[in-house]
Amino acid sequence: MMEQQHQVDRVLNGDVRAAARLIRDIDDGIPAAKTVLKALYPHTGKAYVIGISGFPGVGKSTLVDQMIQQFRAEGKRLGVLAVDPTSPFSGGAMLGDRVRMQRHGTDPEVFIRSLATRGHFGGVTRSTQSIIDVLDAMGKEIILVETVGVGQDEVDIVTTAHTTIITVIPGMGDDIQAIKAGILEVADIFVINKADREGVERTRNDLNAMLEMNDSNGTWLPPIVETEAVRNRGISELLSQVENHKAFLFGGDRKCLRERLRKRAWKDLTDTIKETVTTEIIDRLQALPSFDAMIDGLVDKQTDPFTLCEDLLEEFYAGKEKDGVPVAGQKDR
Amino acid sequence: MMEQQHQVDRVLNGDVRAAARLIRDIDDGIPAAKTVLKALYPHTGKAYVIGISGFPGVGKSTLVDQMIQQFRAEGKRLGVLAVDPTSPFSGGAMLGDRVRMQRHGTDPEVFIRSLATRGHFGGVTRSTQSIIDVLDAMGKEIILVETVGVGQDEVDIVTTAHTTIITVIPGMGDDIQAIKAGILEVADIFVINKADREGVERTRNDLNAMLEMNDSNGTWLPPIVETEAVRNRGISELLSQVENHKAFLFGGDRKCLRERLRKRAWKDLTDTIKETVTTEIIDRLQALPSFDAMIDGLVDKQTDPFTLCEDLLEEFYAGKEKDGVPVAGQKDR
Repeated sequence: MMEQQHQVDRVLNGDVRAAARLIRDIDDGIPAAKTVLKALYPHTGKAYVIGISGFPGVGKSTLVDQMIQQFRAEGKRLGVLAVDPTSPFSGGAMLGDRVRMQRHGTDPEVFIRSLATRGHFGGVTRSTQSIIDVLDAMGKEIILVETVGVGQDEVDIVTTAHTTIITVIPGMGDDIQAIKAGILEVADIFVINKADREGVERTRNDLNAMLEMNDSNGTWLPPIVETEAVRNRGISELLSQVENHKAFLFGGDRKCLRERLRKRAWKDLTDTIKETVTTEIIDRLQALPSFDAMIDGLVDKQTDPFTLCEDLLEEFYAGKEKDGVPVAGQKDR
Repeated sequence: MMEQQHQVDRVLNGDVRAAARLIRDIDDGIPAAKTVLKALYPHTGKAYVIGISGFPGVGKSTLVDQMIQQFRAEGKRLGVLAVDPTSPFSGGAMLGDRVRMQRHGTDPEVFIRSLATRGHFGGVTRSTQSIIDVLDAMGKEIILVETVGVGQDEVDIVTTAHTTIITVIPGMGDDIQAIKAGILEVADIFVINKADREGVERTRNDLNAMLEMNDSNGTWLPPIVETEAVRNRGISELLSQVENHKAFLFGGDRKCLRERLRKRAWKDLTDTIKETVTTEIIDRLQALPSFDAMIDGLVDKQTDPFTLCEDLLEEFYAGKEKDGVPVAGQKDR
């Protein structure tokens, strides 16, 4: 506990090594990390979180790289979190790319992390939010979160940002339709990257057509920004649109901002509950002497997962009743 | 219950309308569907499930379309499930594509469904398995499951197939590395689609290099098949490799097969538990009079999600203790 208080203090002072260790603990699911996160929580909520999402190949990482460069030119302290196995930031890419991205690696005001977790129960979005909280608590003013725009978890992550940027490229055709299905309603800004390619006009028209259909969000009309990230073109306009969206959120009665923060808090809470309960139940389940027989029973169709689940939960709750004495596995209580 | 027994019988007789209704109910999360699924479960496990995964743009749907064609030529009864918002099968694509795919729409032995669900708690993989079970119970011999290969849920889905096909295209570069991170260990067959494009050799070398590093799986070496799905080239070879893999699984002591079925059963059970528990707890949570105040407390940093979660779960279990009387929300018990 003493040690944990020490870690809390160090993170709050912006200590990179303490923050890095905490993030590693979160990623590994170390229980002690929770105590530190609890203590950090009151110190969060100051950073401005920008989500950048898009399919593999649209150039998100280059875009993020240029955004870092520009925010640094403005003197901002930056946190970057890549939740994308294809991101060079997460070590998923070829060496050349990785080296290029590491031009910010020696800048003490840029703290770049990636989320390696794949498969902790209910863990991806929960871990992401915890890491954002760490970056926030350590004093980063801007936090960039890069996710690949496919998969429910990945969509959930960007929806809780202050500003969500959806990146597309010309000629995506079908994929634009997919964005429509899953992501359109959460986009605050659209970026058409690789805007030197053929088909920019059509992509812009497609996006506009979708935006016109979607009249539910009457207050903020997502702008469409053309960029060529590799040539640093359009990045200034993108950042000024982020600024516009920020002004919109923080202007007036701040109802939209409050709604967004409430949505994030709700997601945060349900993720925590989901992870806590399922981890507890499933740990207990795997420790049952009857575990192997249960799985065999399913494979051999002697029972079905729904009936088995009902039985197991009944026993689990009965175990809870006995105040922490694990009785699961004994039907005859 | 009578009506549900009737639906069970109709699905077992291969009735398309009954199956379609059940799948819709599963997708919508209708509780009555569970009763039907329980009754169908003993009749499942006969179909051969093939997972086809890959990033958007690699041509998965065209590949699936050609595989359907070929399996039909062999007289096989087919089920197809698209768990991919970008798939033409799931209506995510342009009209032209959708029409082309519907050439099998009038064939009574091909039953094509898509999973529209995005966001039911823990629902995507659980719903997918349930729909596979429906297709299986209605007598389909081969079930093709198409998923986009990004996101934990999407990866989980293909890992439970009998044969998992990972599709790439030449020139993917970085993305191949991403596959390495997430999917390599689950691939039974690699397809290099659009094999008329430049860079096939390099892609093949990249895959081979990865396979050589991954010596943990000594028993089955995933073959690499080149295809041009739009020209129907390589599909026969792909199907004969599927046949080889099937022979491998069903030959000898069937240890690999059993392990795969056990893994699927375990995933099935944990998904069911996860969904059941979290739905129950979160429904109860949302019904609390103190719900709004709780969320505000989080936004205003008066509490943190971990502490709140501990309190809520304590109350939830206490409520369970009183045998179904919901007491959650009353701290002073």
